[in-house]
Amino acid sequence: VTVASTAQQIRSAIDGWRRALGAEQVIVDGSAISELLNNASGLNKPEVPAYLKARTVEDVQAVLTVAREHKVPVYPISTGKNWGLGSRIPPRAPCALLDLSALNRIREVHEKLHYAVIEPGVTQQQLADYLRERGLPLIINLTGSSPNSSVLANALERGTGFHRQRTDECRGLEVVLSDAEVVRTGFWAERTATEPHFYRHGMGPTLDGIFTQSNFGVVTAMILDLIPRPPRIALMCFAFNDDALAVVIDRLRTLYDQGILRWIAHVFNDARMNTMNTSKNPPWLAISAVMGDEDQLAYYRAQLEAKLLPLGTSLAFIGEGQVDVEGADPMITAMYDVHRGKPTWGFLHGLYHTITGAVPENYDELDQTTFGMLACLPVLPMLGETVVALRATITAICEAHSLHPAITFNPLDSTSLETVANIYFDRRDPDAVSRAHACQNELHRTLYAQGVRFYRTDVSSMDFLTDRPTGHQRTIHKIGLALDPEGIIAPGRYRPAGP
Amino acid sequence: VTVASTAQQIRSAIDGWRRALGAEQVIVDGSAISELLNNASGLNKPEVPAYLKARTVEDVQAVLTVAREHKVPVYPISTGKNWGLGSRIPPRAPCALLDLSALNRIREVHEKLHYAVIEPGVTQQQLADYLRERGLPLIINLTGSSPNSSVLANALERGTGFHRQRTDECRGLEVVLSDAEVVRTGFWAERTATEPHFYRHGMGPTLDGIFTQSNFGVVTAMILDLIPRPPRIALMCFAFNDDALAVVIDRLRTLYDQGILRWIAHVFNDARMNTMNTSKNPPWLAISAVMGDEDQLAYYRAQLEAKLLPLGTSLAFIGEGQVDVEGADPMITAMYDVHRGKPTWGFLHGLYHTITGAVPENYDELDQTTFGMLACLPVLPMLGETVVALRATITAICEAHSLHPAITFNPLDSTSLETVANIYFDRRDPDAVSRAHACQNELHRTLYAQGVRFYRTDVSSMDFLTDRPTGHQRTIHKIGLALDPEGIIAPGRYRPAGP
Repeated sequence: VTVASTAQQIRSAIDGWRRALGAEQVIVDGSAISELLNNASGLNKPEVPAYLKARTVEDVQAVLTVAREHKVPVYPISTGKNWGLGSRIPPRAPCALLDLSALNRIREVHEKLHYAVIEPGVTQQQLADYLRERGLPLIINLTGSSPNSSVLANALERGTGFHRQRTDECRGLEVVLSDAEVVRTGFWAERTATEPHFYRHGMGPTLDGIFTQSNFGVVTAMILDLIPRPPRIALMCFAFNDDALAVVIDRLRTLYDQGILRWIAHVFNDARMNTMNTSKNPPWLAISAVMGDEDQLAYYRAQLEAKLLPLGTSLAFIGEGQVDVEGADPMITAMYDVHRGKPTWGFLHGLYHTITGAVPENYDELDQTTFGMLACLPVLPMLGETVVALRATITAICEAHSLHPAITFNPLDSTSLETVANIYFDRRDPDAVSRAHACQNELHRTLYAQGVRFYRTDVSSMDFLTDRPTGHQRTIHKIGLALDPEGIIAPGRYRPAGP
Repeated sequence: VTVASTAQQIRSAIDGWRRALGAEQVIVDGSAISELLNNASGLNKPEVPAYLKARTVEDVQAVLTVAREHKVPVYPISTGKNWGLGSRIPPRAPCALLDLSALNRIREVHEKLHYAVIEPGVTQQQLADYLRERGLPLIINLTGSSPNSSVLANALERGTGFHRQRTDECRGLEVVLSDAEVVRTGFWAERTATEPHFYRHGMGPTLDGIFTQSNFGVVTAMILDLIPRPPRIALMCFAFNDDALAVVIDRLRTLYDQGILRWIAHVFNDARMNTMNTSKNPPWLAISAVMGDEDQLAYYRAQLEAKLLPLGTSLAFIGEGQVDVEGADPMITAMYDVHRGKPTWGFLHGLYHTITGAVPENYDELDQTTFGMLACLPVLPMLGETVVALRATITAICEAHSLHPAITFNPLDSTSLETVANIYFDRRDPDAVSRAHACQNELHRTLYAQGVRFYRTDVSSMDFLTDRPTGHQRTIHKIGLALDPEGIIAPGRYRPAGP
């Protein structure tokens, strides 16, 4: 299903949206929209006839009703910070944007069963403040993105926090389908006021998975698992040389198998660390949280020293006392903060300083700066030799484009490892922009041909990575036709036009 | 969609199935089918015009093509041991049975990434033998059902092993849809021969969840996560009195939050234990595995003794040396065996001895004996007072029917707890049969009205528990119409006739 709205349809839809939301919630001014479409990826601006600001679930229902009536699609954005993956750019146009940032209620937090019910506009900072102000012994699984980025949207995109994959934190969704029906998944469908949310499956088929990396509906709330605050958190920081990469990855795998590593590790190359500090960085640094009481930390420390240190050059454990002091390494402080549930600007600060030029006063204005970023996001089996081979391919392709990728390997568990290969460029330089895009394109095509798969992608690469004649894709299309027959929600998002 | 096949359609379908499978694979003899429909639940036998024995995925495709052409539905069974939940009885009739037990290939096992690709007919014993014979350092998350029960089918039904929920072990599915298309989910859709299976999401919407507790397709293979064999396994056995039930549940919750308990616990009441041994049992016994090296076990032991023993009457740790000896308690031996990946008849042995009457030579002949069993399976938040309230309701209702339920509480993690309330009865006694069914019915209705929800159910209660006018159910119907428009796969299974 591809919607190709006519000018008349678009005019009628805008009239309908104005009636439904109020005129001040419908931006149609070309220059205002053009500014909203500036993007860190350096992508061209598609035709966006309107920017719609919803304030309530009822607004979302009304927007979809009008969109369906006039066959003008909408692309939902939460806080609009999909940086490096397309920012606010929809994969297909013409398409209106549906801004959900004003749906920002924290509807409920349950302390004992450690969850929050949040809307798309709820930010990392907002949720962290909420927990802190109420003295709740819970922490959020944060990302290194802006403190003002949406928790729900990142979880739906299968983003990964510093502790674990955010998808695993979803216990239920509230979704508006294209026919404006509000669907609550699992036991939430029938929840009475007195029952807490505790179980993610419900009875019968489990639906949550089909709304991740998906355009089947507009998600307006999520039940999000939180982490009980442990008595102590320490960061293991393990430095090693390049020739040890394969053996370290294999050893990390066995440490996960043994339950000694229990949270995601982040393995940074020096180019990535150089964005964060001015220290002399080792070729690789692996960081992972160990959490618990004194006895647990002593056990983990002894185990990790015995099993990792012989493979590397140093192994340290960083506790609270080493980061809350003058002169602490900003990278280590940022890492400690995100692990203890405190949102940080540290990672964005680092990114800005990779490109000479004006750093904005408000770091959230990234799309309006000259800073450019593209990402390539493969997911690999947790096997040392595979990781080394991938690194070689990425490095060779980037060097052929005169680029130096910032690489992070994030083992999720004992079987899979996500890779973040970031390319930074200066958007003032047209040659730099086209080199970066050519490089990203070649990374995707070469790695794909080698059998590498990707856990997430920017909007411009979605068709290439998902338009495959498989039964899996045909099944997704059948479900898409059932839930959104006119294709009015985020056309092209993780789903090409049809088999 | 409800299929009401005519006699002519059924005759045509049988002809078609005979042509497709060979006549010897199509049983139509009434008395043979009647025997196959004997069931431990004591349910009446519905109209089953044919019993179809598939040997390959192509057979499954052919069966569905004929079923769809002639509008005669089929109900897939794997090894047919859905005891207490309906055995081979389809929720709607007329309906042919599709026996998948001959699809019993272990297609692949990967040691380092610890998974197996298995078909529906692969049994617990078969997979355990495979691992043992090859000396692989991997164990299976077993259930206490027959060693000859299907691993895949139990995982799809969201069955729970002794270590963890089996759904969480699924990394991908191969499904035949009603139009005979074979769909492999996620990255399996495009897998080349050299790539291992390591990541369960793929890119785009995740489909696996919609094929659990579902009638959207016939699953012909699953990628199943296995557990790396730890250096040591010990069973924590913690006895406590009835008045401590609430505080123990709350304490278990914090032990999960702290990462001290990491696998499912089983909390048995005395009636449940009395089926297993002839010891004087405590009112409640909680058992959970602790796994790791000597240091880890010492840490867990110290923590559990400090945090649990003050609430109970005894706490012991059982190691290998205490079960592989003469005179060991058969219940503890059975528990240890399932935790170390060794299938056992111990639990079935116990069940048979609850009812006087002939114990069969082959324990798998349960459906052919006089032994009757029904189950009620609520899932609760992990809150002590909620668990105590549930226990009171279950006990009161069962006592009003002169029944004594065998109850097990299985905390899955720090937020949810599954309950198994089993009712045993003598199928020779019509009054006992009807009392048991009345009791199960009242359990479901009373608990449902109290806001309790269920993680699984027998076929006779599916309509009551799932036929609710919610957006969740309407969405499931839309997907069902998209994937199986004629409703020929397992009609009524976890999905009533329509909104």
